[in-house]
Amino acid sequence: MPREPRWDRVLTSAARLFAEDGFAATSVRAVAERARLTKAGLYYHIKEKEDLLFRICERSIQEILDGARAALVRESDAASRLTALVRNHCGFFFRHPHNLTVLNRDMGALTGAQREAIRALEMEYLELIREVFRLGQKQGRFRKLDPTVAAFGLLGVLNTFDRWYDPAGPVKPEALVEQVETLLMRGVVEERRK
Amino acid sequence: MPREPRWDRVLTSAARLFAEDGFAATSVRAVAERARLTKAGLYYHIKEKEDLLFRICERSIQEILDGARAALVRESDAASRLTALVRNHCGFFFRHPHNLTVLNRDMGALTGAQREAIRALEMEYLELIREVFRLGQKQGRFRKLDPTVAAFGLLGVLNTFDRWYDPAGPVKPEALVEQVETLLMRGVVEERRK
Repeated sequence: MPREPRWDRVLTSAARLFAEDGFAATSVRAVAERARLTKAGLYYHIKEKEDLLFRICERSIQEILDGARAALVRESDAASRLTALVRNHCGFFFRHPHNLTVLNRDMGALTGAQREAIRALEMEYLELIREVFRLGQKQGRFRKLDPTVAAFGLLGVLNTFDRWYDPAGPVKPEALVEQVETLLMRGVVEERRK
Repeated sequence: MPREPRWDRVLTSAARLFAEDGFAATSVRAVAERARLTKAGLYYHIKEKEDLLFRICERSIQEILDGARAALVRESDAASRLTALVRNHCGFFFRHPHNLTVLNRDMGALTGAQREAIRALEMEYLELIREVFRLGQKQGRFRKLDPTVAAFGLLGVLNTFDRWYDPAGPVKPEALVEQVETLLMRGVVEERRK
């Protein structure tokens, strides 16, 4: 699907409406109105409502993946790589908070080949995170946690920001990223000097 | 609402169906059939489908809260308290995995006074977790993380188990709890002896 301003506007409008009202409760007409298109004009781009959900999910995970790969190339040690992954994922959330909500809550509405395609992208991302944990263990820098548990723990923290975080609140975005890095890298407990 | 076997069966059936098919897509008739009641028999207990969702959410958070309070009384230092909270929350998930899915995904369908009541219970639980972080900082044992960020970080890890964790997989429940404790308390990075 080409990147063109009108199509971008459609996906942004759809993500916002899905996030606010839920995928099931949002009509194609409402998306068209929000994107300033006729319903017929919107159906030029898609066959059915599920296509909007699919394109939002696909573009979102692809953007997170592209950012993660670019960040990993710049860093060689596991701790820097993990920090880079956290920053990349947080950056996506700050740019597209609605997309994270849709991805986390509504993706289950996809079926068939679309569901498989999104699952495959998710698995790529999961594997990339697990590789960083394995590298850190190989380098003797990371604890021997199960890479899958650690990866889903990290994703659990990062993928639930949309449930509670308000960038206008007392914790600014940059502080949130730093706090989450500390929590994941060092944990809650202050190490005692022996 | 009294605790009686038939009503328990209704809530268990409803939670399983909501978790599997989504709240919106589940009919009262399907819940009645699963619970081996007539539709009229089910409507003796509830006025509308939302009441089932409300009772599932209410009972779930109440059970987590009761368990957390009982655990906190037994422990005095912050690290033991935090461990007790994690174990209590994990225990609830192992007993009622479907309820966690409903709580996390479908609670947004509640409105009015029911929504407010659940929000109030959630806030009680959040505050109880934040108090443990504040205590740990006061005792000089915990890092100076924002208690709200730390609490939602912890909840992010614990409340997303239903998305990925399979107790029949390679990581057994007890191992999952230990790994998550290590991740949250000590973090990913192995501390170097200076």
